Amino acid sequence: MVVKVYGPAYASPKRVIVCLIEKQIEFETVPVDLVKGENKNPEYLKLQPFGSLPVIQDGDFTLYESRAIIRYYAEKYKSQGTTDLLGRTVEERGLVEQWLEVEAHNFHPPIYQMTTQILFFAKRGLPADENLIKESEEKLGKVLDVYEERLSKSKYLAGDFFSLADLSHLPFTQYLVGPMEKEYMIRDRKHVSAWWDDISNRLSWKKVLELY
Amino acid sequence: MVVKVYGPAYASPKRVIVCLIEKQIEFETVPVDLVKGENKNPEYLKLQPFGSLPVIQDGDFTLYESRAIIRYYAEKYKSQGTTDLLGRTVEERGLVEQWLEVEAHNFHPPIYQMTTQILFFAKRGLPADENLIKESEEKLGKVLDVYEERLSKSKYLAGDFFSLADLSHLPFTQYLVGPMEKEYMIRDRKHVSAWWDDISNRLSWKKVLELY
Repeated sequence: MVVKVYGPAYASPKRVIVCLIEKQIEFETVPVDLVKGENKNPEYLKLQPFGSLPVIQDGDFTLYESRAIIRYYAEKYKSQGTTDLLGRTVEERGLVEQWLEVEAHNFHPPIYQMTTQILFFAKRGLPADENLIKESEEKLGKVLDVYEERLSKSKYLAGDFFSLADLSHLPFTQYLVGPMEKEYMIRDRKHVSAWWDDISNRLSWKKVLELY
Repeated sequence: MVVKVYGPAYASPKRVIVCLIEKQIEFETVPVDLVKGENKNPEYLKLQPFGSLPVIQDGDFTLYESRAIIRYYAEKYKSQGTTDLLGRTVEERGLVEQWLEVEAHNFHPPIYQMTTQILFFAKRGLPADENLIKESEEKLGKVLDVYEERLSKSKYLAGDFFSLADLSHLPFTQYLVGPMEKEYMIRDRKHVSAWWDDISNRLSWKKVLELY
């Protein structure tokens, strides 16, 4: 069964797509245009009642929330493609879960604010909130300081293995180092910088950048 | 090994404690006073570098982020205490993960804003942001409308079984119906109301309310 992924042009669906590539799972994509409000169409809301991206359909099974979808595929196809995305023991999985939550609750909020203000407002000539950008950059910097300390002790966030916790950082960090022109936030931190080089050079992520 | 849980007086650690009680896991608590800034002490930051609650210590194993900790214990002691907290199949677990993410990303942000404004500011005579309270209540109402629709079709969020997704809603919903005096948000929605009566009457949650 080919997995259908909705909204491949956006960051959160890319989190799902890079995971499907790592797990060697066949998929096809269905475009959803947020500017046209296609995520509020009744047909779409039947699949995702909050009107958010992404959602997947896998035969009869529908699932939304990118971090739930990647956990589902990493668990369902444990031994296919890249293994260990959830760790090898229950303790390792605990640490993967911890860093997935850190990504969602510490890393994501400030980088999402920056994305909205810088890429969706400022770059389109709309009024951006400079104070909010500054404040978010400071918050993100403090989060990256904790990452720097952590990555000085282990190669990846959850330990010595590449996991969903690392993968989950790819789409928004790509915005940061690319169109947001804030690569210095990564490069000023030696271990974060090496980690970013490692994870962003994975074939799966290069494929995502090439495709969308 | 007795599990040490830090910060039992606060909502997120209660998410962990109710899970430990469901799973019949022995624990002890270590108070952390946020008003005194004990979460910023160097000793605490060694355990939880972001200075957030909760963190647990289980022998040599340290883990933070409440939703990571509950997944860890539900997985580690699958067949002890309440089973099925993560579902019985990989698809059910997928749905548990989906609704855990909905709780974290749709339900939590507005109810957390309301908690901060109403319980920590307004009730202590500090200036609260009435617009923010109103806006958050509207957002939460829309989320609960989706829950109402979902719970008209299944007894619990992820299906016909009580799971971590339901459990995760207990601490902040308790604030909403109790000290925030907004029980009508639950009672105005028939299926949400029945669901709340069901989950908040579990012995585990009554025990948490009695203890802390």
